[in-house]
Amino acid sequence: MQNLNVGLIGGGFMGKAHSLAYAAMPMFFWPAPALPVRKVIAEANPDLAADAARRFGFENSTADWRSIIDDPDIHVVDIATPNHLHAEIAIAAAEAGKHIICEKPLARTGEESKAMYDAVKDKNIVHMVAFNYRRTPAVALAKKYIEEGAIGQILSFRGTYLQDWSADPNSPLSWRFQKSIAGSGALGDIATHVIDMARYLVGEFSAVNAVLSTWIPERPLQAGGADALGTVRGGEGPRGQVDVDDEVMTMIRFANGAVGSVEATRNAHGRNNYITFEIHGTEGSIVFNYERRDELQVCFASDQADRRGFRTVYTGPAHPYGEGLWPIPALGIGYGETKIIEAYDFFKAIAEGGSVSPNFADGYQVALIDDAIVESAAKESWVEVPQISA
Amino acid sequence: MQNLNVGLIGGGFMGKAHSLAYAAMPMFFWPAPALPVRKVIAEANPDLAADAARRFGFENSTADWRSIIDDPDIHVVDIATPNHLHAEIAIAAAEAGKHIICEKPLARTGEESKAMYDAVKDKNIVHMVAFNYRRTPAVALAKKYIEEGAIGQILSFRGTYLQDWSADPNSPLSWRFQKSIAGSGALGDIATHVIDMARYLVGEFSAVNAVLSTWIPERPLQAGGADALGTVRGGEGPRGQVDVDDEVMTMIRFANGAVGSVEATRNAHGRNNYITFEIHGTEGSIVFNYERRDELQVCFASDQADRRGFRTVYTGPAHPYGEGLWPIPALGIGYGETKIIEAYDFFKAIAEGGSVSPNFADGYQVALIDDAIVESAAKESWVEVPQISA
Amino acid sequence: MQNLNVGLIGGGFMGKAHSLAYAAMPMFFWPAPALPVRKVIAEANPDLAADAARRFGFENSTADWRSIIDDPDIHVVDIATPNHLHAEIAIAAAEAGKHIICEKPLARTGEESKAMYDAVKDKNIVHMVAFNYRRTPAVALAKKYIEEGAIGQILSFRGTYLQDWSADPNSPLSWRFQKSIAGSGALGDIATHVIDMARYLVGEFSAVNAVLSTWIPERPLQAGGADALGTVRGGEGPRGQVDVDDEVMTMIRFANGAVGSVEATRNAHGRNNYITFEIHGTEGSIVFNYERRDELQVCFASDQADRRGFRTVYTGPAHPYGEGLWPIPALGIGYGETKIIEAYDFFKAIAEGGSVSPNFADGYQVALIDDAIVESAAKESWVEVPQISA
Amino acid sequence: MQNLNVGLIGGGFMGKAHSLAYAAMPMFFWPAPALPVRKVIAEANPDLAADAARRFGFENSTADWRSIIDDPDIHVVDIATPNHLHAEIAIAAAEAGKHIICEKPLARTGEESKAMYDAVKDKNIVHMVAFNYRRTPAVALAKKYIEEGAIGQILSFRGTYLQDWSADPNSPLSWRFQKSIAGSGALGDIATHVIDMARYLVGEFSAVNAVLSTWIPERPLQAGGADALGTVRGGEGPRGQVDVDDEVMTMIRFANGAVGSVEATRNAHGRNNYITFEIHGTEGSIVFNYERRDELQVCFASDQADRRGFRTVYTGPAHPYGEGLWPIPALGIGYGETKIIEAYDFFKAIAEGGSVSPNFADGYQVALIDDAIVESAAKESWVEVPQISA
Repeated sequence: MQNLNVGLIGGGFMGKAHSLAYAAMPMFFWPAPALPVRKVIAEANPDLAADAARRFGFENSTADWRSIIDDPDIHVVDIATPNHLHAEIAIAAAEAGKHIICEKPLARTGEESKAMYDAVKDKNIVHMVAFNYRRTPAVALAKKYIEEGAIGQILSFRGTYLQDWSADPNSPLSWRFQKSIAGSGALGDIATHVIDMARYLVGEFSAVNAVLSTWIPERPLQAGGADALGTVRGGEGPRGQVDVDDEVMTMIRFANGAVGSVEATRNAHGRNNYITFEIHGTEGSIVFNYERRDELQVCFASDQADRRGFRTVYTGPAHPYGEGLWPIPALGIGYGETKIIEAYDFFKAIAEGGSVSPNFADGYQVALIDDAIVESAAKESWVEVPQISA
Repeated sequence: MQNLNVGLIGGGFMGKAHSLAYAAMPMFFWPAPALPVRKVIAEANPDLAADAARRFGFENSTADWRSIIDDPDIHVVDIATPNHLHAEIAIAAAEAGKHIICEKPLARTGEESKAMYDAVKDKNIVHMVAFNYRRTPAVALAKKYIEEGAIGQILSFRGTYLQDWSADPNSPLSWRFQKSIAGSGALGDIATHVIDMARYLVGEFSAVNAVLSTWIPERPLQAGGADALGTVRGGEGPRGQVDVDDEVMTMIRFANGAVGSVEATRNAHGRNNYITFEIHGTEGSIVFNYERRDELQVCFASDQADRRGFRTVYTGPAHPYGEGLWPIPALGIGYGETKIIEAYDFFKAIAEGGSVSPNFADGYQVALIDDAIVESAAKESWVEVPQISA
Repeated sequence: MQNLNVGLIGGGFMGKAHSLAYAAMPMFFWPAPALPVRKVIAEANPDLAADAARRFGFENSTADWRSIIDDPDIHVVDIATPNHLHAEIAIAAAEAGKHIICEKPLARTGEESKAMYDAVKDKNIVHMVAFNYRRTPAVALAKKYIEEGAIGQILSFRGTYLQDWSADPNSPLSWRFQKSIAGSGALGDIATHVIDMARYLVGEFSAVNAVLSTWIPERPLQAGGADALGTVRGGEGPRGQVDVDDEVMTMIRFANGAVGSVEATRNAHGRNNYITFEIHGTEGSIVFNYERRDELQVCFASDQADRRGFRTVYTGPAHPYGEGLWPIPALGIGYGETKIIEAYDFFKAIAEGGSVSPNFADGYQVALIDDAIVESAAKESWVEVPQISA
Repeated sequence: MQNLNVGLIGGGFMGKAHSLAYAAMPMFFWPAPALPVRKVIAEANPDLAADAARRFGFENSTADWRSIIDDPDIHVVDIATPNHLHAEIAIAAAEAGKHIICEKPLARTGEESKAMYDAVKDKNIVHMVAFNYRRTPAVALAKKYIEEGAIGQILSFRGTYLQDWSADPNSPLSWRFQKSIAGSGALGDIATHVIDMARYLVGEFSAVNAVLSTWIPERPLQAGGADALGTVRGGEGPRGQVDVDDEVMTMIRFANGAVGSVEATRNAHGRNNYITFEIHGTEGSIVFNYERRDELQVCFASDQADRRGFRTVYTGPAHPYGEGLWPIPALGIGYGETKIIEAYDFFKAIAEGGSVSPNFADGYQVALIDDAIVESAAKESWVEVPQISA
């Protein structure tokens, strides 16, 4: 079991989640594929960086992320910054031959994503984009059912990602509302998770037809805004323009003939992290709601007529990743577990010299879908989605 | 309290539901606006007609629906036939000065619907189209909340109507799969209910952008098919072509700026009568699921932060129509109650010399939306919805 | 198909529910076992009686319930009065050879119930006590599963009946709070329904161990109180003593070795008609909640480990009584349907010369359980339940 | 921020959960009250101990738990062994002046628990018993509502803890089925969690009245059985006697006049970690289900009548411990978070020189309740619960 040294760039919420994953992964999956060593953490401000190191259990800290890239002892670069920094860091890390895990979305646009993908695709490194929600055990179970043919051929997919944290018009103009940093709004921030799951569970998108809405066109400026590594600071003062979407609604044509839709908004009062999908197949249906993420609902058409209905399956040892997680279903899958599993699969790929999904190719393909959605909304028409595999 | 004589045309499932409503309405709403008298029922086969009269408590029966139109003692004509007969009967009834309640959809097309609307619009009669689900007390409560401003300005609407009764490719080619009788498939049969609720709760549609799918292109022919009044007979034999949609998915632009979507399918294993909507407003959200129709979920943004969340309100005496229904919430609203309330409002309009909604204008407007959906799916583009009020 | 003339005594909420059942039963179950004719309705006040006749569709009315007993044209006596009148009316009806359906609980005490049971037991009449909730299709489906052995040997039963309509200390001292009229409080009013279901699904009670609580010891007196037929009139003024229980909690030993508990209260804010049970067997579990009565949840231990979980079965045509009810599950079972099914089974027993369950023997056995519960609460100890079959 | 060195005894599932908590606590709660240092872990087998140290991130390992007690550098002793070792270890640790966190139940009996309590009560150490479920944020929120008077005076409490992992008669006779190691069955293993929550939320128990059932009287012997530190090894062979309860059902009288019940079983097919409670107060109700632990349901009687119903509150930043947990509700509380919060409160007490609840007094009081339950079941009568505070 080798030690693999990690350099983490970004000490915000995502830094926390990734640090937890590195500490906990071997506790859950043992023998571990490798032991992550929390070597160094970067934050723009050196005091904050030192503080983050202590908090998140890193040996060292730095205010200069490039020093991580330059450090020959670092095996893994973890990019947990705002979106606009992903490309520069990832390309540098790839050139330095580091394995890379990058927060989602891969970048602000398809073009940026392509540059990142080009940087890694011919190198002998493992690259991953952190669409963690597909690693919820219940989602992995849905994948297993589908691959086993348990619901037959898929006819339709309906996904949502509904939140309410930006429904308040007085919540600040954080970087997530600024196109220059975030690339897009609800689309890149949250819809991409559902798009990733749709690709994972159903298959490639051939075309999209979308509507983007900006419900709150301006928000209070933050005193400081986001710093270079994207930590959001509270702020007050005059209002600035929101130039990203608050809500995205799209119809989907899948390459395999299925149809679908995705709706994502951060303005849905009462919804918190409402990631859902409903999939209808010729032999059954699957329903998932992340807010009740220990559960997957599945209906098998082949069940005897007087006993047919959605089964509420609580994931546990009998289900994907169950060998590593908690000994009893419903003991409790939290957000942390999705990141712990993500780390497990990432380090396993490194240890075994393989690859992992979703990787930068997947991240780039999602970016192409995002670009098509933006174009579709502007043109008010269907737009074909280019395929990178082609 | 006057007696009003009803002639009911059609003795199938809808005949049963309407008969129940006529018998039960005064039991629930008392003093009743008027007393419906079940005078005569029509079915194409005279023996079946006589049988239906006994079963549904009608004084007389006939095999000739025109005799009902011609009978001066009949005040109300109730059209519970398959869709292709609606127009002819309704126009005849209108010309004879009868009050009319017609099952949904109003007709097969906008053109047919227009003829019906033209026939009633300048006459002194009450006309209604039986979109009964908006009369579920929980839906009426949603309307009340919206009118009171409790959820602010509406931003988005998402509706579904999912069933699974036609998911089996061996289920017969009943009239509901034949365009010449039904007009359309899931669109007219079930999506129209959600479209009606969307108009009722949010407002007029300005444009639609739709996909129609036919998942099972042919089905076993029935031995006899539907008779003239549409009662479906079981059958076997070779297969015939399905020329209507199994599934409809549409995006919506509302005139007031809100956006929305509707999905309806009869091929969703495990869904039975899954009529749902979720509405997000600037001040709150409302969620409804007919499969749990005693309940309405509502979230008020103004609730104190540590006590905020969807409230599950069980409708009862404190809610719309509660004065007539059961004395305690959750005693149980069934399908029958939606039709009893419908009858109540219809007869009240007659007794008071007023009008009721949804009427033929509403039915015609929904038909225009349906036509736009069909056109949009064919053109693969947004289509503007004409407004009859214009 | 014979006509059977019904005399209904009591024109309150229960009169409404029974009238609905008589009108609708043949609409649902056709050919009907018999056609109930709403012949005469009794209320103490002649004007109210006449009004009720019109409202509920009865041919005649009377202020003297004895005239119904004396009328040789009446085949069925329906007792929908407050509890204290059940025994006198039922015994008179039995002596007159009428078939009898009596609202629950059968009477105020075991002693009264015994007199009623003795009056009917050797006569050639059909007698029934109206524990309607066991006729919810989902409950009948639970019974079917159990009889098929699908959940194995039953180990435990947990039932509740929670309401909140008397949680307000200012709600009036209706007859339901007066021992002389009601016999007991939550125990006889609502717990008996769950006790009936426990006997139906699990088997006979051998012993009980109970706690009775009266949370609100006095309530406002009503101006008039209940009239002879028990219709509750609104009232104000000084407060009177509540001498019945607000809440009952009991443990149960069943004769077959299973254990159980029942809790019933009318002081549970937020609960409306929360009749629930959960049954654990050696091979599976069943869960029911009347507030979502279209559904039954069942878990089969024999399901494959990675697909095991509670199935949510929506009752419909494939389930008990489905041939008569609505054509699609979740179209909607309401309170009315439970009474329609009750009427169906009652009239079928008359038409076929058989008997029906729950009958007066069942009602008497439940009364013996109730008496044991009262005794147990007073003695603060286990009390054996006498068995009338012994 | 001081470092505090932890010696953990026991490397099974609980060892994992506690190790996670020590690693993650400062990541969540920052500045942390203190930094737990994972110093040494004990397991009976030295190879397993070394393996556990690597897996769980401890600096050292030992096969002799006494060496931890004797080590002056250890500040905190964490007891995560089977129940029969709790007392000996805890008493030794107390005598050595260590702070102690001990898994639940505190010990096998009240007598053992008393010895432990006596050992700590006059020492200047922080002691805690790990009833972690009360630290689920939703449970802490229930406590807050109750303390604020939001549901008034509590009338009744109903709690359950239902699992199904021992429903299979072929699951092995692990230490949890052996009285000499576990003390009791479902009672000590799981019911104690609910009893702890009942005391926490409602108040002291004055008397209990219980039934204990053993559904599966013998089970396959394990090849090796549990080792000294209780790690369960798979096994086969002949069957041995189960001498503990599979199911416990008890009624409760609380000192403040409320009534209650608790049911716990490990033989409930389809239930996984179904810890629930429902509390009725004079002004509202609270309902919790750990299987959906992000949510708390609360009904306020004071809500306007047409908007009253259970609110489903997803805990997050606006709720207890929200400052440290995830930035958005429903991002996901898992089992780990309950232990992270537990560690936070424990170390805060050490850092601040205070105490924490539940401590050994609470653990002892729960043991007295357990003993009373056992006695009640044997005597088949109510048994008063002694109060240690008296």
